[in-house]
Amino acid sequence: MKEYSKSKLNRVKRGQNRATYDIEKINTILDAGFIGYVSYVYQGGAITLPMAYGRKDNKIYLHGSQANRMLLALLEAKEMSMTVMHLDALVLARSGLHHSVNYRSATLFGSVKKITNPEEKDAALFCFMEHMMKGRWDGIRTMHQEELDRTMVVEMTIETASAKIRDVGVADEPEDYNLDFWAGLVPIKQIALPPISDENLKEGIEIPQHVTNYYNQNK
Amino acid sequence: MKEYSKSKLNRVKRGQNRATYDIEKINTILDAGFIGYVSYVYQGGAITLPMAYGRKDNKIYLHGSQANRMLLALLEAKEMSMTVMHLDALVLARSGLHHSVNYRSATLFGSVKKITNPEEKDAALFCFMEHMMKGRWDGIRTMHQEELDRTMVVEMTIETASAKIRDVGVADEPEDYNLDFWAGLVPIKQIALPPISDENLKEGIEIPQHVTNYYNQNK
Repeated sequence: MKEYSKSKLNRVKRGQNRATYDIEKINTILDAGFIGYVSYVYQGGAITLPMAYGRKDNKIYLHGSQANRMLLALLEAKEMSMTVMHLDALVLARSGLHHSVNYRSATLFGSVKKITNPEEKDAALFCFMEHMMKGRWDGIRTMHQEELDRTMVVEMTIETASAKIRDVGVADEPEDYNLDFWAGLVPIKQIALPPISDENLKEGIEIPQHVTNYYNQNK
Repeated sequence: MKEYSKSKLNRVKRGQNRATYDIEKINTILDAGFIGYVSYVYQGGAITLPMAYGRKDNKIYLHGSQANRMLLALLEAKEMSMTVMHLDALVLARSGLHHSVNYRSATLFGSVKKITNPEEKDAALFCFMEHMMKGRWDGIRTMHQEELDRTMVVEMTIETASAKIRDVGVADEPEDYNLDFWAGLVPIKQIALPPISDENLKEGIEIPQHVTNYYNQNK
């Protein structure tokens, strides 16, 4: 399967020319970030909260404490939706109507289950951590069993999804190009600044390679 | 009123020490960004989509085409929720459990109405545009009546809200500070890159001051 099938749920209505259902493209958007906006129904209304996630194949991993209200609500609902967006530029047109932003966004729909099998849980936490920063798992101490027990891991199986990408310049009305107004893009980027060691760090410990690599790839 | 009243809807359950209901602090978080995650109920499930917004006092302005599915759903639901989050740092602890992020997030709950009065609509679009980039409104041509007619403006009145802020360093288990693992922060920041003029720009038009100001304040 190379594309998610289109249904009423994931079919993009507005701006279809910017839509894609390509699984690889959607995964690229998911892997470029690690904060997703997860929504659930509470007292008849919709609530959305930012959560860190990991991805492996068509699985998304979330975690939290065993008492996490959102995770419990997701498990009760048995299905969830998650949106990830990267802002790439302000698109400043000559007219208000054609102002826009360049972005890459993906919206996922899928089923949800709790992971209880110890090996699966371990693999999910590994995926989660490595998704945030490659190599991090080997840079921390082993988790205690009591910590694992306090942690709830939720697995979403992506059943359908869509993405929207805008990555072009200004598109004004033809007659407006002669106006004496400036138009253009202001690119926007999320960057990392140099790592700051914990002030209580044991003497002689250097910033590890995987952290330096992350900084160099994101600065 | 200096604080939003706490109800079942906005009371922060997890990490109460990071929670605030202070209106000024919440407004500062809202004004530091212009993309919010708006959620609504669709076929019994919750969907969230990123949308640009403007804020004035306790009002949030969204806009889109008159056929925008989300705006129509919000008007039908008569209430909405919106979340704004700024990611400030990766918090890399010695243990997996104490990994976290530094962030500022606000979640708003409120009622929704469509703005039809022409002066109010104009003021809302001004607010929206100026929220994205101060001074922009004077740098574009006047909107045509037909464009205004095609545009739907939705006003949310913030009825209650909460914010969560984490802005401290690593907090590991006491006994872990002696381990030979590095810990620290990697600050994360969203920046603007130098403006790129439209390739079809009329000759002799310079990048206006308000765009240069924006770049200088966000680079």
